[in-house]
Amino acid sequence: MAKYVIGVDFGTESGRAVVIDAADGHELASAVYPYSHGVIDETLPAPDDDVRLAPEWALQDPDDYLRTFQQAVPEAVRSAGVDPADVIGVGIDFTACTMLPVKSDGTPLATLPEFRRQPHAWVKLWKHHAAQPEADKINATARELGEDWLPRYGGKISSEWFYSKSLQILDEAPDIYAAADRLIEAADWVVWRLTGRETRNSCTAGYKAIWSKQEGFPDADYFGALDPRLATIIDDKMSRHITSIGDKAGELTAEAAAWTGLPEGTAVAVANVDAHVSVPAVTVTEPNRMVMVMGTSTCHMVLGEQQADVEGMCGVVEDGILPGLFGYEAGQSGVGDIFAWFVENLVPAEYFETAEREGLDVHQVLEREAARLAPGQSGLIALDWVNGNRSILVDVDLSGLILGATMATRAHEVYRALIEATAFGTRRIIESFEASGVPIKDIVACGGLPAKNKLLMQIYADITRREFSIAASDQAPALGSSMWAAVAAGAAKGGYDSIEEATARMAHLRDEHYVPDPVAAAVYDELYAEYVLLHDYFGRGANDVMKRLRAIRDRALQSAAS
Amino acid sequence: MAKYVIGVDFGTESGRAVVIDAADGHELASAVYPYSHGVIDETLPAPDDDVRLAPEWALQDPDDYLRTFQQAVPEAVRSAGVDPADVIGVGIDFTACTMLPVKSDGTPLATLPEFRRQPHAWVKLWKHHAAQPEADKINATARELGEDWLPRYGGKISSEWFYSKSLQILDEAPDIYAAADRLIEAADWVVWRLTGRETRNSCTAGYKAIWSKQEGFPDADYFGALDPRLATIIDDKMSRHITSIGDKAGELTAEAAAWTGLPEGTAVAVANVDAHVSVPAVTVTEPNRMVMVMGTSTCHMVLGEQQADVEGMCGVVEDGILPGLFGYEAGQSGVGDIFAWFVENLVPAEYFETAEREGLDVHQVLEREAARLAPGQSGLIALDWVNGNRSILVDVDLSGLILGATMATRAHEVYRALIEATAFGTRRIIESFEASGVPIKDIVACGGLPAKNKLLMQIYADITRREFSIAASDQAPALGSSMWAAVAAGAAKGGYDSIEEATARMAHLRDEHYVPDPVAAAVYDELYAEYVLLHDYFGRGANDVMKRLRAIRDRALQSAAS
Repeated sequence: MAKYVIGVDFGTESGRAVVIDAADGHELASAVYPYSHGVIDETLPAPDDDVRLAPEWALQDPDDYLRTFQQAVPEAVRSAGVDPADVIGVGIDFTACTMLPVKSDGTPLATLPEFRRQPHAWVKLWKHHAAQPEADKINATARELGEDWLPRYGGKISSEWFYSKSLQILDEAPDIYAAADRLIEAADWVVWRLTGRETRNSCTAGYKAIWSKQEGFPDADYFGALDPRLATIIDDKMSRHITSIGDKAGELTAEAAAWTGLPEGTAVAVANVDAHVSVPAVTVTEPNRMVMVMGTSTCHMVLGEQQADVEGMCGVVEDGILPGLFGYEAGQSGVGDIFAWFVENLVPAEYFETAEREGLDVHQVLEREAARLAPGQSGLIALDWVNGNRSILVDVDLSGLILGATMATRAHEVYRALIEATAFGTRRIIESFEASGVPIKDIVACGGLPAKNKLLMQIYADITRREFSIAASDQAPALGSSMWAAVAAGAAKGGYDSIEEATARMAHLRDEHYVPDPVAAAVYDELYAEYVLLHDYFGRGANDVMKRLRAIRDRALQSAAS
Repeated sequence: MAKYVIGVDFGTESGRAVVIDAADGHELASAVYPYSHGVIDETLPAPDDDVRLAPEWALQDPDDYLRTFQQAVPEAVRSAGVDPADVIGVGIDFTACTMLPVKSDGTPLATLPEFRRQPHAWVKLWKHHAAQPEADKINATARELGEDWLPRYGGKISSEWFYSKSLQILDEAPDIYAAADRLIEAADWVVWRLTGRETRNSCTAGYKAIWSKQEGFPDADYFGALDPRLATIIDDKMSRHITSIGDKAGELTAEAAAWTGLPEGTAVAVANVDAHVSVPAVTVTEPNRMVMVMGTSTCHMVLGEQQADVEGMCGVVEDGILPGLFGYEAGQSGVGDIFAWFVENLVPAEYFETAEREGLDVHQVLEREAARLAPGQSGLIALDWVNGNRSILVDVDLSGLILGATMATRAHEVYRALIEATAFGTRRIIESFEASGVPIKDIVACGGLPAKNKLLMQIYADITRREFSIAASDQAPALGSSMWAAVAAGAAKGGYDSIEEATARMAHLRDEHYVPDPVAAAVYDELYAEYVLLHDYFGRGANDVMKRLRAIRDRALQSAAS
């Protein structure tokens, strides 16, 4: 008799539940709950909408996550037409670091009347960017004290991560910090709400909270150097007990069973992160194959058998992606969103008119025109730093560059140059891995971009000289979560005893593969050499014009405001 | 009783005649003759339109120039309502180097049935760019032989100039070269047709044909080294008798009087060039004031009392602009046409929709939005090389660069950055002059751009830290030609005995002046330092990426064609 697993993917704007056949990964049905408050970045929700947020803030309402369980899960089960009794497990993945302050019983401070009007009581979404001063302090202090964990994070902790956000709460709302019995990833918090047990997963602990299986967390001296009140943050507000990816977190409580319509006692997997949970979902469980989640930004993940310090990676975490292996993560902060920025701001009407006339998306028209060009034919080269550089330079103050324009340059040529620039950025990351002893044999892509844009995938294959495969599922995170759910349930219940077994049965690739064209690749080798020259000249201090322009811009904006 | 002078300005697409009051420069009327064959760049005109031209060719029909005399001049006189008997002089200015092969009586080979189907028999327009191999040979040979005239041309002879075009005729159509009794600037040819006398003006001889008052032409050894058949080109095809700007070339013949409706015997000034004739027309007759003709490209002219070698100038010619002074010329090959390229190719519909809604030109909308930005606020910087660099790098293989884009970058910010880039290019030229001992005190601008775009002029004033005045006349070349006509006529006939006197009476400025704003100028000093850093890095060999990209592009285009 068929058994089913449910993956719940908590995204930036909505939560999605997918019902999946545990035998073969077939997706029976899915349902989406668009968060009623979405991303909160101007004012708090009514009736507190007189409370304005500063720039760079991004909050969420924790109740939106619970409504995802209450609405999307039952709807998906209903539309799949399966008997809830045949659902053997639930797994979730989340954006990260998305964190919140809660009481010891898990009650979010944001839901308590006495804290509701304080922005710091709410969930800080991954893209809350207001904690840069705290991140700067975290990095400066780590360098000063010679903290040996810093190289594991490419030499830099992000303003998006756990302690930057925690320290901002302490700096700006010490009463909230004091009132919080726990500071917790939203990923772990929703699993807590499902199971009634607080667990802390090894993925977010490792990538976002500087935890390692061998070394644990940074010590109290380091936290005390940041702020004496922070010295005991781990024991006061967090937990030293970290649960590995792949473990069972617990079982559905009666309350959670009522929300979801699933049987009480259904297995729940330890929480996970959207990008990382995609790795087995796209068939990868072995070292030296890169997984790229390609959307507005790109996340690169590789498994390794040992730890290496790779320049500019986001992090390396043992058990961070799969138990028993080191999970490496790197990233490009602007990919699809650079193309969207270009299309919105620098593409003339004629492309839109063609798109409308032919019933196409404007990206398809640009892709078609760009596909008529041979590599190098536009004479253009670009740096993919319009949204800064995450890996390998780890520098948000870098900016875009387009070079080689002539009077003959057309918008679709710039579009292609921007695609190529992001592919050069990926090649630079691959070379950084290989230089540190982490070879990359081939690449599996998932996310919004690969299925939509064949030209883009061929360019990536040509430029990286790697074969690209494409995930079969459009919902790799939800599929991945359901696979971990199947492992949490175990083979005895109709699931699997290991992620490798689950992967072998449930994860699939498309028939579509992109193989490097040697003629194109040879031209791109030449262009890549130019990219590296510009990358190092503008990115490594020879000419810091981008930083100086930003400083001049900031001064101009301040004068204008004063 | 009032006396009138007529200036005829031969442009790229049309010829314009303007009737002007010799007393005060007042423009009574003008008429335009659009050349019936315009720019001939695809096929010869019918019935020979089966003869196709190669890329980069640009020809004209000499009869179009005569039709300008026959149609535009009488129409202008008629609409001015003046008695032709009160017209005391005619002056012309022309694009240059625009040249043609003719018989000894002035008959163009293109008008002879036996040569009509040969492209090399026609007028080669200034922007005929097919003689680059010849220019390369001219430059290489000059460097080899250590020719001492090369520094007078910033170290490089252009493919647009006289010997490049002549040598191309010899290389590709030796029968045309042999059949030509004279090779002559179209400027001098039209004056010949008006007066019946062949003269050669010091302006085009100096700037386009390597003549100097002190040294004459390059010697036969040099020309012989280019090609033995070219050794005697000066004596065979040209003339060693050069007539200074400001001289009278002759008087209208009976035939020309009939064409124009003017009295036989009317004074005709020596031919001149559109940019150079504008200098007195915008009130400048003294050293150290720069005149900028700002349109699709910009021409910079300065008068000096002695000769200096200025890096990257187009040329320095004694009597080249005014008799008795050295005329310096420099240029930027892309200015207005870069803005036009950007607007046509990279500006989204919303700006055009705003323009249409408000009854504005899209440039006005972009200017208005750009004017809201403070200097430096966009965070962008650009190099103004989309159409190559004329001065000071003299390198057509350079290309455009835009640096500093973020996800917040909008089209009007790029537009402003492109304006600023062209102003930085002008400042770089000014600094080149000053470094060679040619100070620039202030600047007078004319041409299509200054009257249209106040933001642009203020940015130029701020960036160059120079006061800008604007010519009163929209037709500076025709006004200038008429002023030289008044000098050719002389005071006794109601004209003037010197260009200085004519200038004092006939040339005027607007009341509008642009004075540098010290706060903006200080910010621009910082941005200019960045411009110079990028200018030298990409323009002086530290990183020849622009040339390499062009070579890769050319290879790609060749593969695509083969």
